[in-house]
Amino acid sequence: MTQPASFHRARSAEAKQVREAAILEAARTLGRERGIRDVTLTDIAAQVGMHKSALLRYFETRERIFLELTAQGWREWSAALRALLQARDAADSAAVADAFAATLAARPVFCDLLAQAPLNLERNVSLEAVRDFKLVTLHEVALIGAEVDRLLGLDEQQALDLISTATGMAGALWQMASPGPRIRELYVTDPRLGHAVVEVEPRLRRILTAFLAGTTA
Amino acid sequence: MTQPASFHRARSAEAKQVREAAILEAARTLGRERGIRDVTLTDIAAQVGMHKSALLRYFETRERIFLELTAQGWREWSAALRALLQARDAADSAAVADAFAATLAARPVFCDLLAQAPLNLERNVSLEAVRDFKLVTLHEVALIGAEVDRLLGLDEQQALDLISTATGMAGALWQMASPGPRIRELYVTDPRLGHAVVEVEPRLRRILTAFLAGTTA
Repeated sequence: MTQPASFHRARSAEAKQVREAAILEAARTLGRERGIRDVTLTDIAAQVGMHKSALLRYFETRERIFLELTAQGWREWSAALRALLQARDAADSAAVADAFAATLAARPVFCDLLAQAPLNLERNVSLEAVRDFKLVTLHEVALIGAEVDRLLGLDEQQALDLISTATGMAGALWQMASPGPRIRELYVTDPRLGHAVVEVEPRLRRILTAFLAGTTA
Repeated sequence: MTQPASFHRARSAEAKQVREAAILEAARTLGRERGIRDVTLTDIAAQVGMHKSALLRYFETRERIFLELTAQGWREWSAALRALLQARDAADSAAVADAFAATLAARPVFCDLLAQAPLNLERNVSLEAVRDFKLVTLHEVALIGAEVDRLLGLDEQQALDLISTATGMAGALWQMASPGPRIRELYVTDPRLGHAVVEVEPRLRRILTAFLAGTTA
């Protein structure tokens, strides 16, 4: 008995989704282990057990894979942050700063991707991929903005400034805090370089606390 | 009549300095034209009229050239910023924020380098080069910190937070504001992507003004 064509299409679409999810998970694992910068398309193909040419049928470039992970990261971080904010009826600016800093610092791969996206990831993919990515981030920015407006009365520009400071500094501080073992050793052993050692969460919390205190004053 | 050996050494050291300066200037010119990311060692060698193998006798890697430009950028920006701050007997936090935002936004190549340094430049050079670079930046950070302490009474940690926010966001915002002509066209023509268009100076000024108002409150 032959299956109807629609059954085959559904089976095939499902298999494609499973394969895409496996590729993204492999890229995420490697990115967590060694940093996004040092993960090649060949590494991802080896990790997922596919030939590189087969992998390219699912994602056009290495950057397309990581841009998709960045979009997933925005959705997942935004949901976690908004869950924290929605649990409150009213919040002072320090509590909001704390929620931003804690949820970002808990997501090192996302912090790495936040810095990589405008420098590298958006530059080796199709225009359509950039458009889709931007629409995801702007949608999440609007959802987060609505929560900080409800809690602190921030207008649209203030909310945009807050979210771009939080995500921009999370990316920048994570890169400074993760220079690799060789340079980190240098920082901690040379007493003149003490200020080169960066801790992401406390610094991000202080910066956002000051920003919000100044914005809501 | 033969010249003494010391004369030849001095001539040779001077010629080396002239050649190094020409290489750095060529890299800066290309970086300004097309962005640091898209400038290769081969491009720099062609611009300065040297063979690539000859250029490698002056700088070990492409990243070493741009890290040296970043160090020069720190010295030059710090001097310009401190000149503005030193001209004041007392300053409100908005005037200090304005001085940081204006001097950074006026230096697009430095903003580009600020984002590239921790992601890419510090990772393909010798440990000694990273140490020298960090000592330059920490020295300038201390000089700037002394000025903001004098004007606003910031302690060492507050000054570090201010300077890392200013330089971190200058780098991040510049990258967002400079996605290349193809993507910029997409942002300005698709009305759903209006918030993806970033202007560095006004946003940086607002963020630093709020940060300083909250810090000095």
